[in-house]
Amino acid sequence: MAHEKVNIPPLKDLTIDNITDNVHLINSQCEEPRFKYVMERLVSHLHDFARETRLSTPEWLAGIEFLTAVGKKCTDVRQEFILLSDTLGLSLLVDSIDHPKPSSSTEGTVLGPYHTHDAQDHTLGHKISGDPDGEPLLCLCTVKTTTGEPISDVKIDIWETDSKGSYDVQYEDYSGEKPDGRAVMRSDKDGVFWFKAIVPVPYRIPNDGPVGKMLDKLGRHSWRPSHMHYMFEKPGFDHLITALYLRGDPYETSDAVFGVKESLIVDLGTVTPEQAKKYDIPEGSKLLTYDFVLVTDEETKELRNQKAAEAMKSLGRDNMKILDGLPVPDVD
Amino acid sequence: MAHEKVNIPPLKDLTIDNITDNVHLINSQCEEPRFKYVMERLVSHLHDFARETRLSTPEWLAGIEFLTAVGKKCTDVRQEFILLSDTLGLSLLVDSIDHPKPSSSTEGTVLGPYHTHDAQDHTLGHKISGDPDGEPLLCLCTVKTTTGEPISDVKIDIWETDSKGSYDVQYEDYSGEKPDGRAVMRSDKDGVFWFKAIVPVPYRIPNDGPVGKMLDKLGRHSWRPSHMHYMFEKPGFDHLITALYLRGDPYETSDAVFGVKESLIVDLGTVTPEQAKKYDIPEGSKLLTYDFVLVTDEETKELRNQKAAEAMKSLGRDNMKILDGLPVPDVD
Repeated sequence: MAHEKVNIPPLKDLTIDNITDNVHLINSQCEEPRFKYVMERLVSHLHDFARETRLSTPEWLAGIEFLTAVGKKCTDVRQEFILLSDTLGLSLLVDSIDHPKPSSSTEGTVLGPYHTHDAQDHTLGHKISGDPDGEPLLCLCTVKTTTGEPISDVKIDIWETDSKGSYDVQYEDYSGEKPDGRAVMRSDKDGVFWFKAIVPVPYRIPNDGPVGKMLDKLGRHSWRPSHMHYMFEKPGFDHLITALYLRGDPYETSDAVFGVKESLIVDLGTVTPEQAKKYDIPEGSKLLTYDFVLVTDEETKELRNQKAAEAMKSLGRDNMKILDGLPVPDVD
Repeated sequence: MAHEKVNIPPLKDLTIDNITDNVHLINSQCEEPRFKYVMERLVSHLHDFARETRLSTPEWLAGIEFLTAVGKKCTDVRQEFILLSDTLGLSLLVDSIDHPKPSSSTEGTVLGPYHTHDAQDHTLGHKISGDPDGEPLLCLCTVKTTTGEPISDVKIDIWETDSKGSYDVQYEDYSGEKPDGRAVMRSDKDGVFWFKAIVPVPYRIPNDGPVGKMLDKLGRHSWRPSHMHYMFEKPGFDHLITALYLRGDPYETSDAVFGVKESLIVDLGTVTPEQAKKYDIPEGSKLLTYDFVLVTDEETKELRNQKAAEAMKSLGRDNMKILDGLPVPDVD
């Protein structure tokens, strides 16, 4: 049998104390510095987790079986690992790291699993929901820079559930040809965009899989508070994925996926007689107003580099450089 | 729609800084103290990993896709998550934590994926391998207590590959009826057990799945050095899963799953004319001798409690108690 040449530095005698160093050593030949650094931190945390919990063999096996079940639950239309990441707060954290925001701008939040590319382009004023049971809602919004300048021609993708708390894609007979509760529109020269929708309602994340069982075992519910999703795109500006939440929702302070932020909670108003006439919507309908603020790519890049450098400093690593916002070992 | 009553303490405004505390808070209602503690450490390490690497959204997605592929690769006869755990050194670490050994005893090592329950009971002296191409090996072993007393009637499960580096179960036509390279036997009144086998050879762990791709990306090979597996069971003694490795193997210092320990490496000897006659094996055949030392359940339990208490102390957690060797929050 032909054996491979071994370039790996020899491992030391393996014990519970030096196993971590030995795994780092065997991974040290990796030619991609960023991947090597990510794996080094991953292995360190994985091992420390086992040491700090004194993880038992039956618990380890339960973990292996849980992860296997999560993988088996994944299909083209169901991503159970993203659901796991969402319910452990990782998705929100990664979004915050990748899209840091100055305090003057609109915060981001979780994308969730129900964004599609089926939504059609519509002019301002479009009624995005065809659900007759939904409570009518007029949305009057603007999109501006951090210095208050209106931003025109921003592509805005909006999606919400129907009055039963289900997205169009969750219905078995959904074909993609008649999207509902979705629209793509563009801001006008004053940065204004407006549309008609229905008042959002709470809904449950899919809880019939291993992640649902985990939530049960943790004594948690699987509800998300009422919200409406927004995605903003314009060249030169950092992609913003966010959502607005309704104040007073029963799950406002216990969102299963940690999406709620104080700055994204809105109080609904009431459409005045003048607005009813102007926007052709029944008087007394609910009204949502919000001024979104986008950050430029330059501002985001600078902030990302700055926060990465701060993180390396607090980690006591002085042998790192920041490349495109990501720390990598500085081998020079 | 009927909403669930929310008992969860209200989450604070979510930011990159307090997301971890908020996940702990939402999990704090968990009624199983041990599970709550394990999840608290898991979430802390998962979040710190993302913060310390400044994990980007594309990297996060690559991780989600990798884990999904690992789950999809798992079948009844292939456990890719265990392979992942093995190649990241976690399996060895968990075994060391769960089965701590005093220095006078035989160290444990990874079980590996090829142990079966097909092996039949045999008397001492059995030839466990039917491979005519294997190099004959005489194995003369004993099993004793940490104070040197022989232990009789220990159930010893032994398994090794054939001369091509494959276990019986890896052949497509394997039915389970004629196990090869496997046997179960029992030590005699002097703690002696002996058998005939073939000299072990190196082999590769399954590398055609996502874990194989990860090893490639890390610049690692997928070889395991030559070894023979042993499992010891007797009521009153801690279950010992171990293996013996051949000194001078090309992969002695770079085992893909970190199983090698200095104390488990053996130098093969040569069968003397007297031994050849006594054990009915060709003169000049290779000889393996080893004295295994088992730990009592009591010794293991004490050591496990002691190491768990030390770990809690070094973690600065003074609100923990040790229950069956496992740390749990002390709520009294």
